[in-house]
Amino acid sequence: MYSIVVENIYMLVIVTLISVLQNAFFALKVEKECRSVNPNAAAFERVSCANRNCMDSYPTFLAVMWCAGLCLSQAPASFAGVIYLVVRQKYFVGYMGQTSQSTPGYLFGKRVLFFLFLMCIVGIFNYLLVRFCSSDYKEYVETITSAASALLLLP
Amino acid sequence: MYSIVVENIYMLVIVTLISVLQNAFFALKVEKECRSVNPNAAAFERVSCANRNCMDSYPTFLAVMWCAGLCLSQAPASFAGVIYLVVRQKYFVGYMGQTSQSTPGYLFGKRVLFFLFLMCIVGIFNYLLVRFCSSDYKEYVETITSAASALLLLP
Amino acid sequence: MYSIVVENIYMLVIVTLISVLQNAFFALKVEKECRSVNPNAAAFERVSCANRNCMDSYPTFLAVMWCAGLCLSQAPASFAGVIYLVVRQKYFVGYMGQTSQSTPGYLFGKRVLFFLFLMCIVGIFNYLLVRFCSSDYKEYVETITSAASALLLLP
Repeated sequence: MYSIVVENIYMLVIVTLISVLQNAFFALKVEKECRSVNPNAAAFERVSCANRNCMDSYPTFLAVMWCAGLCLSQAPASFAGVIYLVVRQKYFVGYMGQTSQSTPGYLFGKRVLFFLFLMCIVGIFNYLLVRFCSSDYKEYVETITSAASALLLLP
Repeated sequence: MYSIVVENIYMLVIVTLISVLQNAFFALKVEKECRSVNPNAAAFERVSCANRNCMDSYPTFLAVMWCAGLCLSQAPASFAGVIYLVVRQKYFVGYMGQTSQSTPGYLFGKRVLFFLFLMCIVGIFNYLLVRFCSSDYKEYVETITSAASALLLLP
Repeated sequence: MYSIVVENIYMLVIVTLISVLQNAFFALKVEKECRSVNPNAAAFERVSCANRNCMDSYPTFLAVMWCAGLCLSQAPASFAGVIYLVVRQKYFVGYMGQTSQSTPGYLFGKRVLFFLFLMCIVGIFNYLLVRFCSSDYKEYVETITSAASALLLLP
């Protein structure tokens, strides 16, 4: 039981751990700004806002990534998760920049979340096909998904 | 392995996907208000506050719904989840209204969360009964839960 | 299927339920302060801020606890979860105190989260050892983890 479960989720767990490390990094940034000797209200406000925006979308990201990984295949889901974390890091660093042009708005990572969302839908659809039509396209779908996840690397 | 897992969670995954869509809708509302040509501080504050309240309780909702679905039965848990999403939509729209009377306070969906919470407790209790007394009431409990979930439709 | 799943997660579910109760307690405190007859902006700001800090780290906590419980062993993970909840309660109550000295900063529960994080890494590492070297240290690791979790009780 134990090995079967871990075999199917270990990549997702690794990405989750990386995201937790990143959360800790964000929280330390806020903590540091909060306790700095020369308090800078604008800088604190900016860091705190970036952190809040990141945290707001964190449960959504976790839920979509785990659903995609459980319903379809963990490798593309974890890959998309890593890309989301890179995008989030860029967003956070960009938010802390001085110019307002570097602020990338309220939303970020839409493309990655959309990809994970599609993976979930394909997985559910495939399950319903298996159940009601007895036709299993899971292997084809997994191959296509793995190939499509490479498209996320495009800028 | 794959089919067994998906069979037991696919309804929960569907509700989670709907909730993610709703989150995206809320985030787009905030984004739109943030970038509007005629910035309206009060409107932005209201939308942002409604979004924050919704996001604050989102992890709690997800955790309770998945626990209830895994411990007892996925159909009533998903049904309660859909009702929670409807309540949340009403809350968000009500928050954006002009009059303060339409603002439904800080908390919402208490009844649905309480129902899901009860489902978890019943599921755990039933498991302990199976383990220590070898008496399985799961089928009765599932029937009662499915019937009781209809009570959530009452206004 | 049902019993096997619940057997491996029931302690985690119980801790999750307790954390949900605590969230409800925090939310009621905010609600009460929000609707009090003599509105006290400072008190409301403090309660609201404590609640937000707690909610910010809630998904991280849930993710790490569940990963640790699934990858290694549920008993130490649940124990660490309970300790985290105690720390969070102290933090929230301390935040509401009058003096600023009782405010324990932005971060809390770092030690517990770090312990759970280590548990995840050990679990993943053990899985990879099983897979590639066919050497299973899971029983030793579980014993050591259970013993180490007692160290969290140190002040």
